[in-house]
Amino acid sequence: MNLYTLSGNALAQALRNEQETYTALAATGIRLDLSRGRPAPEQLDAGMPMLADRAYLAPDGTDCRNYGQPLGIPEMRALFEEIVGVPKENIVVGGNSSLQMIFDAFLRAMVFGTVHSPRPWYEETGRKFLCPVPGYDRHFRITERLGFAMPTVPMTEAGPDMDAVERLALDPAVKGIWCVPRYANPTGVTYSEETVRRLATMKTGAPDFTVVWDDAYAVHGLTATPAPLANLFLLAREAGTADRVWVFTSTSKITFAGGGVAMMGASDAYWAKNLPYITAQIIGTDKLGQLRHLHFLRDRAGVEAQMQRHRAILAPKFDSLLRTLERELGGTGIARWTTPKGGYFISLDLPSGCARRTHALARGAGLTLTEAGATYPYGVDPQDSNLRLAPSCCPTEEVPLAGRILASSARLAFLESRAGTRHALKN
Amino acid sequence: MNLYTLSGNALAQALRNEQETYTALAATGIRLDLSRGRPAPEQLDAGMPMLADRAYLAPDGTDCRNYGQPLGIPEMRALFEEIVGVPKENIVVGGNSSLQMIFDAFLRAMVFGTVHSPRPWYEETGRKFLCPVPGYDRHFRITERLGFAMPTVPMTEAGPDMDAVERLALDPAVKGIWCVPRYANPTGVTYSEETVRRLATMKTGAPDFTVVWDDAYAVHGLTATPAPLANLFLLAREAGTADRVWVFTSTSKITFAGGGVAMMGASDAYWAKNLPYITAQIIGTDKLGQLRHLHFLRDRAGVEAQMQRHRAILAPKFDSLLRTLERELGGTGIARWTTPKGGYFISLDLPSGCARRTHALARGAGLTLTEAGATYPYGVDPQDSNLRLAPSCCPTEEVPLAGRILASSARLAFLESRAGTRHALKN
Repeated sequence: MNLYTLSGNALAQALRNEQETYTALAATGIRLDLSRGRPAPEQLDAGMPMLADRAYLAPDGTDCRNYGQPLGIPEMRALFEEIVGVPKENIVVGGNSSLQMIFDAFLRAMVFGTVHSPRPWYEETGRKFLCPVPGYDRHFRITERLGFAMPTVPMTEAGPDMDAVERLALDPAVKGIWCVPRYANPTGVTYSEETVRRLATMKTGAPDFTVVWDDAYAVHGLTATPAPLANLFLLAREAGTADRVWVFTSTSKITFAGGGVAMMGASDAYWAKNLPYITAQIIGTDKLGQLRHLHFLRDRAGVEAQMQRHRAILAPKFDSLLRTLERELGGTGIARWTTPKGGYFISLDLPSGCARRTHALARGAGLTLTEAGATYPYGVDPQDSNLRLAPSCCPTEEVPLAGRILASSARLAFLESRAGTRHALKN
Repeated sequence: MNLYTLSGNALAQALRNEQETYTALAATGIRLDLSRGRPAPEQLDAGMPMLADRAYLAPDGTDCRNYGQPLGIPEMRALFEEIVGVPKENIVVGGNSSLQMIFDAFLRAMVFGTVHSPRPWYEETGRKFLCPVPGYDRHFRITERLGFAMPTVPMTEAGPDMDAVERLALDPAVKGIWCVPRYANPTGVTYSEETVRRLATMKTGAPDFTVVWDDAYAVHGLTATPAPLANLFLLAREAGTADRVWVFTSTSKITFAGGGVAMMGASDAYWAKNLPYITAQIIGTDKLGQLRHLHFLRDRAGVEAQMQRHRAILAPKFDSLLRTLERELGGTGIARWTTPKGGYFISLDLPSGCARRTHALARGAGLTLTEAGATYPYGVDPQDSNLRLAPSCCPTEEVPLAGRILASSARLAFLESRAGTRHALKN
């Protein structure tokens, strides 16, 4: 039933019915969580053989227990080449967090500038960074903390709207763009080849325009057929723009979210400028963790085998949530959602002004969702319409109930807004 | 024989004799290394039980394999309180490297300023940081990369010359001082209580003057009696200057140099300002590593038991090198060296102009030493007289030979300088 068509008595009746449905769901006292892209314990269990590894000698005989190798052990750099397609010579391995490497790269750019910077970013008053929306809250928080204005660009089925990007990038104050190019957070979109080519070749006003290429879901397909993604690093090298590309990924969602290994890939010129800072910062990252990963994952095939174990756990949760959304919200006219082929999220769009209220209602019925607005800079969704759903950590058998609470909350929020009344929420 | 007394034929004869001694030592073709404070493999072996640990549940049930707890697991913060005496509430646990945490704290201060900064350090033109000398090259490199001028302060038996420090600290451009307060690198000095009190209470020109308290050798005594060190953090809190203190340490030289756990301690106001940046930087550091450390070290007593294992390996190397120096250089009048009660280094002072030449001669005979000058800012020792000796990684039975090569190189360097001639070095 399309809820937009309701008015008068029919609307009042639908509202009463939905209030009853919602109240009954809330009365179960259940506590469920679709809020963050955390791996489920079963996914973490799939990495347990790694913890049994007592090895400490790298293939070249290096004692990984001791100091040294600030760029990471060579074999780990080579494994990351197999994952993200950046030549291993251009990869530096970090600690357990790609977010930390991103933050560090930004701070270095603030203080020292990057390859073609006329001056350090600190001195760029009015500096801006493009934010495709909906997008990843933790990305936006970094540029917020660093004082960037954050012009938004709408996401399309092919990635960020490149006409808008190309227009905005001509502004010399625009220093770059946030990208999650594969199974984007939260839309699940994988950038088209044309999008990637345009990012590599477009004119930019700032000589130090930077594409932050956070390939967080590089191997995280939910189907047997991975989404193809053009290789930005190699395309940019061909186009003579390699210095604009920073590539990141980690094994956080391959092995252990809290104990993985992260990397950054960048051009020769970037490392020539930045290695003196990296080697002033650290004598060596955790090589024992790198070695454990190497022994466990071995190579691209090993990574894919591990991701198949993850997929067997994750795909049923996504399928279940998508089926519930279809059953509960299909035909209501009030909801559109993505059907991701990978990654950790479903992006749900509701009518304007309904996302915060849906979030509050869901919470009132025991379901925690990502804050409404989180997918926008400053946590403010100007339409108040987008919600990000992350089913990974919800027990599979509970996903339908989570979906029903979500759907009832969304319908109720909409009906309330039509009727101009609000259901009283228990605290 | 005091070499200063030689002249004429006696000098020429002594030079010829020393050339013969040196040539014979060089002819052995040995390769030895006293250059860096790296733990010996036997010390790393003492940490091996840690690698057998497959646990992943923290005492409070937290799954350490997953995301979260950006400040570190509470029990690890408590263990660090036992090591450095900073309240656990004021401790943040990082990755495997305290140097990385130091660098990060500096970059945050550059971009955001610290608690009482009139402006971020980036904007402080002519900014300076005090460097006690001889000191730690990696400290000096950080302030060098960040564009600080580095006024030096001589080290005394009680720590940095506090009269000089107090005078220099009145300059508002002086933003702080580097300190390794216990078993200092390289002199082995532990700061006296008076020194610590003066650092806590002295007037400073800059309201954001910062004492970087790198307690890297907090539990690293070479004798059964640890050197007492006053608690700067608590003294500063009493004096109302807590915000000027940054405390660092790590387990790099307790468990694994490449796979330890690091921490930073600072005031409530410091964390109130900086936690928003830390939580923008990282979702959580490696909690599995923290848990392994907790299970292995347990508490202060466990740390001390582990350090006793280290001492049993390290102390004989230090004793052997000190005995060799006494036998080979005692009474020559050309050398003074420290007798450290802890830490990783012996500091050797030679006549002006002899350190670089001694380094080169030692290298020519197969002995690698830390670069001459490394203990000074920019790697330039204005007297060219100081060398840092690190016997930890030299096999115990080879230490006397390393000492003999060093001593012969030093004597030869001095005799050459007196005679105005130089021994030809093979490449």
